[in-house]
Amino acid sequence: MFSQDDYQWMSRALELARRGRYTTAPNPCVGAVLVKAGVVVGEGWHKRAGEPHAEVYALHAAGEQARGATAYVTLEPCSHYGRTPPCAEALIKAGVTRVVAAMVDPNPEVGGRGLRMLSEAGIKTDFGLLSAEAEALNPGFFKRMRTAFPQVTVKLGASLDGRTAMASGESQWITGPLARADVQRLRARHDAVLSSAETVLADGASLTVRWDELPPSVKASYPKETLRQPLRVIVDSQNRLTPDLPLFQSTGPVLLARHKAAGDWPAWVQQLELPLLDGKLDLVSLFMLLAKQHINSVLVEAGPRLCGALLNKGLVDELVLYQAPRLMGDEGRGLFHLPELTRLFQAPKLNIKDVRLVGQDIRITAKIA
Amino acid sequence: MFSQDDYQWMSRALELARRGRYTTAPNPCVGAVLVKAGVVVGEGWHKRAGEPHAEVYALHAAGEQARGATAYVTLEPCSHYGRTPPCAEALIKAGVTRVVAAMVDPNPEVGGRGLRMLSEAGIKTDFGLLSAEAEALNPGFFKRMRTAFPQVTVKLGASLDGRTAMASGESQWITGPLARADVQRLRARHDAVLSSAETVLADGASLTVRWDELPPSVKASYPKETLRQPLRVIVDSQNRLTPDLPLFQSTGPVLLARHKAAGDWPAWVQQLELPLLDGKLDLVSLFMLLAKQHINSVLVEAGPRLCGALLNKGLVDELVLYQAPRLMGDEGRGLFHLPELTRLFQAPKLNIKDVRLVGQDIRITAKIA
Repeated sequence: MFSQDDYQWMSRALELARRGRYTTAPNPCVGAVLVKAGVVVGEGWHKRAGEPHAEVYALHAAGEQARGATAYVTLEPCSHYGRTPPCAEALIKAGVTRVVAAMVDPNPEVGGRGLRMLSEAGIKTDFGLLSAEAEALNPGFFKRMRTAFPQVTVKLGASLDGRTAMASGESQWITGPLARADVQRLRARHDAVLSSAETVLADGASLTVRWDELPPSVKASYPKETLRQPLRVIVDSQNRLTPDLPLFQSTGPVLLARHKAAGDWPAWVQQLELPLLDGKLDLVSLFMLLAKQHINSVLVEAGPRLCGALLNKGLVDELVLYQAPRLMGDEGRGLFHLPELTRLFQAPKLNIKDVRLVGQDIRITAKIA
Repeated sequence: MFSQDDYQWMSRALELARRGRYTTAPNPCVGAVLVKAGVVVGEGWHKRAGEPHAEVYALHAAGEQARGATAYVTLEPCSHYGRTPPCAEALIKAGVTRVVAAMVDPNPEVGGRGLRMLSEAGIKTDFGLLSAEAEALNPGFFKRMRTAFPQVTVKLGASLDGRTAMASGESQWITGPLARADVQRLRARHDAVLSSAETVLADGASLTVRWDELPPSVKASYPKETLRQPLRVIVDSQNRLTPDLPLFQSTGPVLLARHKAAGDWPAWVQQLELPLLDGKLDLVSLFMLLAKQHINSVLVEAGPRLCGALLNKGLVDELVLYQAPRLMGDEGRGLFHLPELTRLFQAPKLNIKDVRLVGQDIRITAKIA
């Protein structure tokens, strides 16, 4: 069904889409290429929510050349009036004769309607070309659209024998500088960073993206002036956090997940009241509410109790584990506190997606099976 | 100093040497190639202690052609009368005119004397070609020759969060079948397997090499009839082992490391009396005595106490860690019990040598730094 040319132009559209990867949230990143008689006549990618979609840029670049062209888009063109008019309509008006979409938009406001609008207007439509690659562009957005939950990645740094800290709590700088830069990249790729009051108090962490510490490859495609800080979500059931902490001295919004709101906080600190379940804050509700606030993806940087609780409730999609070339001994602090787990058959299974060295450390990326 | 041809022939000699890798112990594996006017006139490798050395096979194959040839050997030719006459003498008699050795033999009975004998006989000698590769052929033999201690590798299988068993002790089959076959390969490569009475009693382990379970690549180069069982060394300070255990129902010699010998044992079970140090068997003495019994290499398959004690005494050279794609939680059993370790700066450092997937499991090979 798809020709070699189709593959080539869709690959180009995917490449364009990736340029928006740090900036489009809560929108997905999308790329578009207009091709006429084997020649690119227009290209575009979505840059930022509220700004034009990829197709609009490509159509604008093509001008009159769009008439009779084929449009390659990494996601089905939208059919609804959002902050911008529907792209399907713009493609029809421009006289495009074929539209190839890598995948149907799982957004319930689109969900095939864009492609139907196009084909009802007599435009030939195809979809499913390089769909796995297109899925991988926006795992968070797609998960939120399909399930009303954000994509959750737990990031952990440990010794080779699975310890995040000595028994004494001593833990700073287990992993090397390249692994730490890679964590900055992870933060920049997520809409929110989740931690606990315990971790914030123990480490004095600010949990921000520090542009200067990003890997050079990310800096090259993510100008400092467009830096976006993820929402920092702190589970603080006992209202232990106070405005003098380093967390509140740094830029970027904070959401305190508490049972009861209290205290005077600046406008950029939001308090979210959550019900208690077995004496603990209801984490399922927290994630549903984050998704309602258009949070597509959450990076968890926390201790064994919060990580264990999230894993136990089935809320974790992915694990990124940095293993430092050290041995810390079996009295050190572990990764996941899972007291409910008593038999081996209950132990969560993972699918290893990637293993590589990042400096002197091993980075393992795995999906919870 | 070395030509491209020299590299080529030494690579061939290394390849030949590797064929003896499962059978030469306690001797090193060695390969030899005789080249005359750019053509191989004889090849050989050492197969088994007591049988001819590599050079002898190569000279025999070359016959009269050896006269005027260059000999490439992965290890300095021997100069002493052992179970076979000195190879240096044989090379001189055969009329070889140049000898290239990858490295000098660290065996104190040789240690440069072989090369000196050759050069005193007017033969041109060179050494140091592909010496790192030659070192890697026989890490155990070379370490024993240089230090009078065997090379010690700790093998462990754990979940991604560093647990070898559930808190209940449940642990069987954490890693997959390819990782288990790889462990069989490790056992086959070592002269001894070390464990503790605790582990033997808990797992009912036999700790033998099971030829049928070796990876196909090993089977292809290691015929079943030449299978050699490593010496199984069990630390049994409290004389808890009894002859009815599965360990004693399987083929191959056993050494019981005890404080006091006791009981009636078949001839292939040796009891070794060791002094106590702080109430525990003196492991340093154990390894020195194993080296005296010509054990070049020891694979440790044991629990966190024995592994931790060995690490703490500086007796471990290498770690081979198989990580299963599971999470077992922080109450599971750890890898190394290191109660002496209280500060992060004391945590042993490792150099990662290799990381790869073995089936669904991750295998990490690391040297203790």
